[in-house]
Amino acid sequence: MGKLIVVGIGPGNYENMTVRADRALASCDVIVGYHVYVDLVKNQYPDKEYLTTPMTKETQRCQMALDAANEGKTVAMVCSGDSGIYGMAALIYELRGESTQPEIEVVPGLTAACSGGALLGAPLTHDFAVISLSDRLTSWEKIESRLDAAAKSDLSMVLYNPSSHGRPDHLRRACEILLRTLPEDRPCGVAQLIGREGENYALTTLGQLKDTKVDMFSTVFIGNEMTKVIGNNLVTPRGYRNV
Amino acid sequence: MGKLIVVGIGPGNYENMTVRADRALASCDVIVGYHVYVDLVKNQYPDKEYLTTPMTKETQRCQMALDAANEGKTVAMVCSGDSGIYGMAALIYELRGESTQPEIEVVPGLTAACSGGALLGAPLTHDFAVISLSDRLTSWEKIESRLDAAAKSDLSMVLYNPSSHGRPDHLRRACEILLRTLPEDRPCGVAQLIGREGENYALTTLGQLKDTKVDMFSTVFIGNEMTKVIGNNLVTPRGYRNV
Repeated sequence: MGKLIVVGIGPGNYENMTVRADRALASCDVIVGYHVYVDLVKNQYPDKEYLTTPMTKETQRCQMALDAANEGKTVAMVCSGDSGIYGMAALIYELRGESTQPEIEVVPGLTAACSGGALLGAPLTHDFAVISLSDRLTSWEKIESRLDAAAKSDLSMVLYNPSSHGRPDHLRRACEILLRTLPEDRPCGVAQLIGREGENYALTTLGQLKDTKVDMFSTVFIGNEMTKVIGNNLVTPRGYRNV
Repeated sequence: MGKLIVVGIGPGNYENMTVRADRALASCDVIVGYHVYVDLVKNQYPDKEYLTTPMTKETQRCQMALDAANEGKTVAMVCSGDSGIYGMAALIYELRGESTQPEIEVVPGLTAACSGGALLGAPLTHDFAVISLSDRLTSWEKIESRLDAAAKSDLSMVLYNPSSHGRPDHLRRACEILLRTLPEDRPCGVAQLIGREGENYALTTLGQLKDTKVDMFSTVFIGNEMTKVIGNNLVTPRGYRNV
């Protein structure tokens, strides 16, 4: 019987993969994924059959993986970050429907909230919201209501997909929404190319972030009312020092 | 020069640790942590000096780790889940202050949103909020405002620390707040003992969850308006099938 393993590979480098993800990729027959993610693992696991599709062909890619598993192969579908959070696991469950074949296993991976947070310091010590600024699959009205709700309830935030060629002004629009509630000097950070060549980060404020250009390899962190800069790190205290 | 590495070990088992976390624990001199988390790694890394403190002595534990690093040792402070999300990284940065010694490295780990989500299926495909129901370090009013904001803006939710001996009714109170906005039949899930012996999960609805007893080893997932049960899994579609 074949099996489909949906593998979150984390930010991209081998060190940030889990032992379980490594074992899944080492033991499978076929690796399926968006070509950029497949390229991240190809050197580590050279002796595999590889299947790729372009970026927007998610349904085709997942069906290809299910078909290969139904042919009796052990198939790993690679997702960057986590396998579930903005990943392919849901679509694979949807496409399989009420069938129990092929077997599906979901292997979690480090999402950018974890890996980017560690790079910046400790911005997410406390409650937070993860919000994507891509309106390809969500209405902008809904994104706006989520940003507004998070700001008003003092949630820290992680903004995924803050920019792309088709929507260069989304981060500016998001900052304008947040600035209705939050102060200009709220500490923020931008993590870039986490776990990949050129990894770096910058600390900033919400007011400055509004006029900052970020690319599609960036993840943006917005502090809550306790967040501060210590040395060169973004830190949200949890409150232990007062206990 | 000594160094302090804050290591997120993930849910508890070796397989769900990252390669980087494994290497940090294998190469350090001293492992510091809350005794429950230390017990999770002790068998894997037997030849280390171990330092532990009880649960509520977080400041003492972090200072002990900093002191050992300042003595020239390579010290790993272990946190369950991620090192930053409800972890010790922030307190360590706070205690070090503006000093640059000892060097601090934060190694991210799988937080329960990722590891529990993978166990349940794919409940967090889309935007979500992570909220702790512990009011030890946060006012209940703030927790309530965050639950309310997340419900009103259709964020999926992950509830950490849903219960403990001192606050057995927090999940019930949280559900009552959510039910002001969300329907009784909203799909939910509870993940227990993720990555440990006895790992299991249950699917339920928000109405039933209100009357469900959970323990401190549980993580609770609340779906958004698109979340559904497929087979025996909790799945939040992202919308790819409509593209």
